[in-house]
Amino acid sequence: MSMINSVVILGAGNLATHLAIALHDAGVNIRQVYSRSVQSASVLANKVNSTPLTEVKNLAGNADLYIFALSDKALQLVLDQMSIPITSVVHTAGSIPMDVFDNYAECYGVFYPLQTFTKNRKLDFSDIPICIESNHIGLQMDLMDLAKRISNSIHLINSEQRKQLHLSAVFTCNFANHMYSIGQSLLAEKDVDFDLLKPLIKETAAKVQDHDPMEAQTGPAIRFDKEIMACHENELKGLPDFQKLYRFVSESIFKMHNEMNSERMKNK
Amino acid sequence: MSMINSVVILGAGNLATHLAIALHDAGVNIRQVYSRSVQSASVLANKVNSTPLTEVKNLAGNADLYIFALSDKALQLVLDQMSIPITSVVHTAGSIPMDVFDNYAECYGVFYPLQTFTKNRKLDFSDIPICIESNHIGLQMDLMDLAKRISNSIHLINSEQRKQLHLSAVFTCNFANHMYSIGQSLLAEKDVDFDLLKPLIKETAAKVQDHDPMEAQTGPAIRFDKEIMACHENELKGLPDFQKLYRFVSESIFKMHNEMNSERMKNK
Repeated sequence: MSMINSVVILGAGNLATHLAIALHDAGVNIRQVYSRSVQSASVLANKVNSTPLTEVKNLAGNADLYIFALSDKALQLVLDQMSIPITSVVHTAGSIPMDVFDNYAECYGVFYPLQTFTKNRKLDFSDIPICIESNHIGLQMDLMDLAKRISNSIHLINSEQRKQLHLSAVFTCNFANHMYSIGQSLLAEKDVDFDLLKPLIKETAAKVQDHDPMEAQTGPAIRFDKEIMACHENELKGLPDFQKLYRFVSESIFKMHNEMNSERMKNK
Repeated sequence: MSMINSVVILGAGNLATHLAIALHDAGVNIRQVYSRSVQSASVLANKVNSTPLTEVKNLAGNADLYIFALSDKALQLVLDQMSIPITSVVHTAGSIPMDVFDNYAECYGVFYPLQTFTKNRKLDFSDIPICIESNHIGLQMDLMDLAKRISNSIHLINSEQRKQLHLSAVFTCNFANHMYSIGQSLLAEKDVDFDLLKPLIKETAAKVQDHDPMEAQTGPAIRFDKEIMACHENELKGLPDFQKLYRFVSESIFKMHNEMNSERMKNK
């Protein structure tokens, strides 16, 4: 049984919303929801049977945990306005070191759910990895207990690893999504519906759930099929940015696999 | 009822295998399976109750359709060895124009299933888009009927559109997968398991099944968050290729969204 039974949520964006709902559904009491915007604070507070709050000075002083689910800039601003002493505090950010709380609280840590959150899109929290870090062993155990109430995937991750996770997430989520946007934009030029690519996108992501992505790699770049690559670059000649990107990513694929193959040769 | 009830499959690679099995399961008679390798021809022939074949000269002359599911180079080699007159022939390639068959058959076309095929990985053919093209209206209708026996997603796509589909598939499948590989390689450096990224990869692909990828874009690049981007580039300083790629894809994201926003401003 977790020692954390009441929390204050600071933030009302996508992550704050999904997390607050998951905690509320798991029986955690959401004492207050803070946002600078009355509207945002109220909308989320209503969803989780909580009290909206727009002034940092009115923060309740006796919640078991304060969860900062704010943008990186807002986090510092709110911290600087805090006047009440709080014991246990975490943030939910991939890129902020844990010790941002050093001068503000005794026990602090990180509660980082690694997922992309979209408003009005239902997500099953149970398979979302939650990365935990704390300066205090008692809080760390409480955070793990709390995380277990909403997810089956709990990990102790230090600040350096978390930073790398965040960077990796930029590649695998933000950059992969940009590849989808480029595909859509290319198809639109020839009046082809983006729907045709959707099963491919889904299967590409499904494949690496149980295959190594290096082994799953296909396409002209990995076999360095110059003929097809030249043909593709030619098709992109009116779109110099996409053309440059095509060449550059292809080279990167070829290089990475060449290196893997020569490593294997060495080890034989 | 399709007029195509017996087919010869030329090729025994991933696509040939998946397609032959889907057709066989739908009740189509797979007359012969051709491959240069006895082993490959036999393995696939066994799966679909067919006869393996390694010599083009022994091709049966009376199948309803000949399906060339060969690599781009092998296709031309096999065509040049054909001595029997065949009436109806298709290939399954994204990047080859239909008229490659011009001197070899009367009725020809393309039967292009748009998906990434992996050996030993079961795929549900029913949602795989099948792109049909033909020089002959009768064959085109027969191909559409045949396609309907294995899939619910049938599309008439001309050679130019198909070429663009193939190029778009390189971005959305091959390049997205490379982003997964980079993520994995970055995590390995800090001893973090790639498993942590899998729910994110899955959700990123799931999101664009019903959201526009441009609207789904998140991350530091779209808001041009210089602080985080500089921090990420710094983390990548020992990996100049990834660093260059990071900068370049980020710029591309920012540019594309800037253009979209200024288009919207104009239309207001």
